[in-house]
Amino acid sequence: METDDPAIDPTPDFEPLFEHRVRFAETDMQGVVFYGEYFTFQDEAVSEFFRQLEHSHDEQVKDGWQVHVVNASLDYRDTSTFGDVLTNELRVAEIGTSSLTFDHRVVREDGTVVAEGTVTHVAVDVETERPTPIPDAFREAVAAFQNG
Amino acid sequence: METDDPAIDPTPDFEPLFEHRVRFAETDMQGVVFYGEYFTFQDEAVSEFFRQLEHSHDEQVKDGWQVHVVNASLDYRDTSTFGDVLTNELRVAEIGTSSLTFDHRVVREDGTVVAEGTVTHVAVDVETERPTPIPDAFREAVAAFQNG
Amino acid sequence: METDDPAIDPTPDFEPLFEHRVRFAETDMQGVVFYGEYFTFQDEAVSEFFRQLEHSHDEQVKDGWQVHVVNASLDYRDTSTFGDVLTNELRVAEIGTSSLTFDHRVVREDGTVVAEGTVTHVAVDVETERPTPIPDAFREAVAAFQNG
Amino acid sequence: METDDPAIDPTPDFEPLFEHRVRFAETDMQGVVFYGEYFTFQDEAVSEFFRQLEHSHDEQVKDGWQVHVVNASLDYRDTSTFGDVLTNELRVAEIGTSSLTFDHRVVREDGTVVAEGTVTHVAVDVETERPTPIPDAFREAVAAFQNG
Repeated sequence: METDDPAIDPTPDFEPLFEHRVRFAETDMQGVVFYGEYFTFQDEAVSEFFRQLEHSHDEQVKDGWQVHVVNASLDYRDTSTFGDVLTNELRVAEIGTSSLTFDHRVVREDGTVVAEGTVTHVAVDVETERPTPIPDAFREAVAAFQNG
Repeated sequence: METDDPAIDPTPDFEPLFEHRVRFAETDMQGVVFYGEYFTFQDEAVSEFFRQLEHSHDEQVKDGWQVHVVNASLDYRDTSTFGDVLTNELRVAEIGTSSLTFDHRVVREDGTVVAEGTVTHVAVDVETERPTPIPDAFREAVAAFQNG
Repeated sequence: METDDPAIDPTPDFEPLFEHRVRFAETDMQGVVFYGEYFTFQDEAVSEFFRQLEHSHDEQVKDGWQVHVVNASLDYRDTSTFGDVLTNELRVAEIGTSSLTFDHRVVREDGTVVAEGTVTHVAVDVETERPTPIPDAFREAVAAFQNG
Repeated sequence: METDDPAIDPTPDFEPLFEHRVRFAETDMQGVVFYGEYFTFQDEAVSEFFRQLEHSHDEQVKDGWQVHVVNASLDYRDTSTFGDVLTNELRVAEIGTSSLTFDHRVVREDGTVVAEGTVTHVAVDVETERPTPIPDAFREAVAAFQNG
């Protein structure tokens, strides 16, 4: 975690944020979850993070900002299949002026890490769609979450 | 085709509108296209119909209307799988004051009808989201298309 | 419910089977859940029904059968959007020799029925992929579930 | 491109492999293509690469191997939306004993690179699902494609 803010724990733990059972439609003809589906799971974990911080997408838009993904990456360590219960865990890896990077991992019920990677969002103004500083209220909510 | 407008061919032919190769991600662990995916194909056929009539979604919105799906139904006659080339065919089954129903079928390269059904849209005002009469210009474009 | 089996309740209640929060990826540029996505929700409700009856897809395959969808239909009554919690309810509408039809409805947290329709599966032999009678053990499990 | 095989062009050009029009279902409530969808496009470009080399998924399986994704990554440079025609281009970045890495980029009709990144597959034995050397016939087909 690289940040100038001493209030934020430099090595936060992963927090479980989105748990779900693998859907039949998410499998492919190899009998496992299609690799692209994990990015939907990743996005739901981030959405839940925002929700728990009381800065959900709706609340962000009311406050004049929202986020766009600028990078996403996953390493696939193992497979998951229909009916598996997966837990998507996140931790904030870095907060810049306008950008926010999460470490993300997907854990199967047996404790196996199925996939792990990162996603970086940039805050944009809802009107101009141009990058905008991440609001202080959100930074403070992140610090409180990580230390909580 | 039930309509009061004598200008519209009462028994139009199916027109091929959306041809595509089945994606790996569209298959499921049974090795075939997941049944829900066919509604995405159906929707693309309708979008292409609007585009060919020069009443694409963008143009509809500029004209103050768009469509919402109120019913969709498919019978599955056969399967399709990764790499198959599918042709989605439509014909207008009925135009009411605000509603528009298409017959839809999905045909595999070997001529087999894989799925067939219908989709009904209702025209809504873009501001109020309330049902609105289908514009005459669109009705005329449908008549010209069906007779063309 | 049309069935010859007097042990099965002729007018079963809807049972809540699959509850989920709408994902961002499930919305479209109209700001609501894309209509095709509801069939994925429908399928998950059916999968959960099978799971609760201890005839999950895995167990069916072990017993030499599985199901294929032969018809699916939905009427859309209202919209749902990102973050909404939806409950998918099912009841068995009809069991034939090889076919199984469910009534399905999707209920928003505020009690509004967003979509309702049906899905019909046919039992097939896992080896031949040809229709096969629905096993008695499954019929009995359905009767017990409906009466329970 | 890191490879021991001097027959393979060290700096191959990007080749257009998968062109498609953005579907309505691929957009989200921000009005643009959901970021996870680009991995489906990426996968179709790779599938088409295999097809053009006459080592399609079917042919691979007949030859006793197939591929699994072990890493996927994309940087998002711009957005795309409903109706846009996108071209997915690939070049082979590296072939190892069992692994194959592609550079991938998504180009909008106006020439703008919307997304770019990589995907790495590992060859596995279809029976054991364990890594297996990439067959020489495939290596030779890659060299011929890159030099062609």
